[in-house]
Amino acid sequence: MPELLLTEIVRLADGELRGSGETRIRGVAPLEGAGPGELSFIANARYLPYLHATHAAAVLVARELSAEVPASIPQVLVGDPHAALARILPALYPAAPREVGVHPTAVVDESADVGEAAYVGPYAVIEAGVRLGARCSIGAHAVVGRGCRLGDDCVVHAHATLYPGVRLGARCVIHSGARLGKEGFGFVWEGGAHRRVQQVGGCVLEDDVEVGCNTTIDRGSIGDTVVGAGTKIDNLVQLGHNVRIGRHAILVSQVGVAGSTAVGDGAVLGGQVGVGGHLKIGAGARIGAQGGVIGDVPAGETYSGYPARPHREALRAQGALFKLPELIRRVRALEKAVLGGGRERE
Amino acid sequence: MPELLLTEIVRLADGELRGSGETRIRGVAPLEGAGPGELSFIANARYLPYLHATHAAAVLVARELSAEVPASIPQVLVGDPHAALARILPALYPAAPREVGVHPTAVVDESADVGEAAYVGPYAVIEAGVRLGARCSIGAHAVVGRGCRLGDDCVVHAHATLYPGVRLGARCVIHSGARLGKEGFGFVWEGGAHRRVQQVGGCVLEDDVEVGCNTTIDRGSIGDTVVGAGTKIDNLVQLGHNVRIGRHAILVSQVGVAGSTAVGDGAVLGGQVGVGGHLKIGAGARIGAQGGVIGDVPAGETYSGYPARPHREALRAQGALFKLPELIRRVRALEKAVLGGGRERE
Amino acid sequence: MPELLLTEIVRLADGELRGSGETRIRGVAPLEGAGPGELSFIANARYLPYLHATHAAAVLVARELSAEVPASIPQVLVGDPHAALARILPALYPAAPREVGVHPTAVVDESADVGEAAYVGPYAVIEAGVRLGARCSIGAHAVVGRGCRLGDDCVVHAHATLYPGVRLGARCVIHSGARLGKEGFGFVWEGGAHRRVQQVGGCVLEDDVEVGCNTTIDRGSIGDTVVGAGTKIDNLVQLGHNVRIGRHAILVSQVGVAGSTAVGDGAVLGGQVGVGGHLKIGAGARIGAQGGVIGDVPAGETYSGYPARPHREALRAQGALFKLPELIRRVRALEKAVLGGGRERE
Repeated sequence: MPELLLTEIVRLADGELRGSGETRIRGVAPLEGAGPGELSFIANARYLPYLHATHAAAVLVARELSAEVPASIPQVLVGDPHAALARILPALYPAAPREVGVHPTAVVDESADVGEAAYVGPYAVIEAGVRLGARCSIGAHAVVGRGCRLGDDCVVHAHATLYPGVRLGARCVIHSGARLGKEGFGFVWEGGAHRRVQQVGGCVLEDDVEVGCNTTIDRGSIGDTVVGAGTKIDNLVQLGHNVRIGRHAILVSQVGVAGSTAVGDGAVLGGQVGVGGHLKIGAGARIGAQGGVIGDVPAGETYSGYPARPHREALRAQGALFKLPELIRRVRALEKAVLGGGRERE
Repeated sequence: MPELLLTEIVRLADGELRGSGETRIRGVAPLEGAGPGELSFIANARYLPYLHATHAAAVLVARELSAEVPASIPQVLVGDPHAALARILPALYPAAPREVGVHPTAVVDESADVGEAAYVGPYAVIEAGVRLGARCSIGAHAVVGRGCRLGDDCVVHAHATLYPGVRLGARCVIHSGARLGKEGFGFVWEGGAHRRVQQVGGCVLEDDVEVGCNTTIDRGSIGDTVVGAGTKIDNLVQLGHNVRIGRHAILVSQVGVAGSTAVGDGAVLGGQVGVGGHLKIGAGARIGAQGGVIGDVPAGETYSGYPARPHREALRAQGALFKLPELIRRVRALEKAVLGGGRERE
Repeated sequence: MPELLLTEIVRLADGELRGSGETRIRGVAPLEGAGPGELSFIANARYLPYLHATHAAAVLVARELSAEVPASIPQVLVGDPHAALARILPALYPAAPREVGVHPTAVVDESADVGEAAYVGPYAVIEAGVRLGARCSIGAHAVVGRGCRLGDDCVVHAHATLYPGVRLGARCVIHSGARLGKEGFGFVWEGGAHRRVQQVGGCVLEDDVEVGCNTTIDRGSIGDTVVGAGTKIDNLVQLGHNVRIGRHAILVSQVGVAGSTAVGDGAVLGGQVGVGGHLKIGAGARIGAQGGVIGDVPAGETYSGYPARPHREALRAQGALFKLPELIRRVRALEKAVLGGGRERE
């Protein structure tokens, strides 16, 4: 484990030092768990009570909270402690060296093209016609189906499945148990049964897409399902056939997007959000957690609730809902006063 | 890739030709992506703007939209373009030939009975006493537990798990990462801890059932969990112990059905629907996406919302909700007029 | 299959016998499916109609329903039939003998420490520095990453993934396809892209935790994600980074808990519940199915709905909602009476 002087931390964080820069830092820990040699951080006033009891060797502090830090603790003032941590952590926790080579138990079809310095783990299966870019890493048991193409530096974790023909850009990360490129859920009712409609579209992830554990992204029925560059998808998300997600979007865990819906660049879908089929969510729109979207959402808007409406309107309506039982009583009282006692109604 | 004359497409689609039947078709693509040699289609007036700009060689058109198609494009008029596509696609995109035989890396217990012309892929594990019907296909890494029985022509995709004793009818399709037959979530509180109640029921899928990626179907506690013939289940669905799904039902992705609930034939549960335990959803009932069912639903009815109510009633109530803040103001004004200014209340 | 006299069942159930204790019992089945030699049970008045038609050899009956059982059927009266079944089932359905040893196809790193009488199944991968306790059982294809530590008697089912560094207490059960210890969903926006924040915390499950199929539990960003002893987690659940679940909690399927939220001892989250980030749910609190929690919940309270509110209040508000369209009409009538016909408003 490396050890850094606090002055080096200050430099990495592009921060301002208060107290001794000679403190030695070996790791990072939350305020309540930090001990000697550990850097902690505070970004949210909610955690101030922990600050006063911490045993951290130093604290990374959001500038607006700096007045709260006891003078006895060396501190590093920054604008955004989370962004600063993102730059500090790799110095304290260097990544394990990347493995290279094909594990003897991997089954790699002879027609597959494995890029330079790539890694293929134990029991991975690489089918015919696959092209793996340089420095790709394929985890244990992962299955890369016929004709898949992966750009350089992709990481496919253990147990992920790429159905045939999936295409990934460069630097994609596919987590364990993700399933890419299954035929979409398309049936027609004919002859007294649901008959499968063959799904001949593709499943395309552009550069720098991350897909969480056990997430499922179906191939297109006709035309492709596409996830734009830089988009990050959490665990247990479902994207139906022909969904198109823009660039740099964020899909939090357990989101479901139904077929043929388009989500714009930079949109954010909160946890468990559901979006109906054939809709458009504009660029930069945000949908609050558990929201249920049944119509188009304009660019830049924040929607929430079911059915999802502009967030301010949804909040007002939800707040009013809890006044409703009392409102019913008030209306009854008014009816009595205006229309007479005989007008008692439920 | 096969190439068909448009006249052959007309015959497969059972449609009506307008324009030249000599056009050659090599594939199918959406209106905005189609190029020379590609057939496109339009089923929904929403996509008319794309029609006028398309470069498709020919278009499959819902009869009611035919007046909208530029005369310059050969067209095939049909009642239902999606049903027609289902018949055209296999001719343009023939399936890869089915593989046969047991991969040398598969672990097949000597007591297992592998049917005629079946396929067992790399690293698949077939445990003791398993019976695989004729022409079954078991994908890479799939695990078929002790004593499972699969009918003819089943397809189990890569990484699926059948816990011991699961029974599948003929022609079932189990997608990657589906987990069938785990013991149900049954505990009793005893001696200061949750104690597992042994789950001794089965997990039974009848003929022609399809199960999506990463879907989980638990075995029964006592008596079986059963999915009826022809039912199609999407990705990431959860069925609890002793759930009984009827025939030809549709369960869209991320649905959850709690223990001992019965869902009737032909019912449709929209995406992310949740159904409580020990309930009955009647045959042909439909539950709108994200609906939360906490009581029985009569056959043939459409319910939505939380708690799920008849759809029309739910729509009316949701619409009214957004008028509520204004209604509160109106009631306050009435109170002022009727009861006097001193009666100001929140 | 063992066969027991009903008198032995009475003893195991600590119940009271009515009728002949000489009846022989070979298995347990639901009322409508039970035949000769089978014990059935009734715990809920909802199933009384099945009782009168049952062919069960004997019935386990909740004391308060005993008057309903036909005198012709031998019965065992107990306080809680489910708890009684939990004690009876192991005698009728003895577990298959536990396998021991390392399958020849397993890849076990030479630096791994495999405990006494442990089992490692076909194609399982045990990476460097892993410590497996005594009698652990690792299923087919399971992957236990670098440096994981498992207590005694843990069961990891087929296809589960433990990312590097996960720590399990004793007697944990990890079901098929569960993913433990993936780096959390943490990014900062910098230079026009979402940049990953390295996640250096751990993923810790204490003793007797059960994790369902395809559930995902992320490692902490800084500090650990922790699940307390005796907690049971169902299928398809998502726990974000730094979540802390107390002891003996119950998380029903498809629950999602966002990062840094703490759930107290004995809390119960119903199916599809979503809980926002950085919240506290008190000990013993219960959240109704599909509830959306966006604020702290006090200990011992029952909340439901979205946004989750005290259950009684939520029920009242939801009930009132469906009276709202009529209330709007009543207010309009009042306005007409009080303010005159010209005041017609929508």
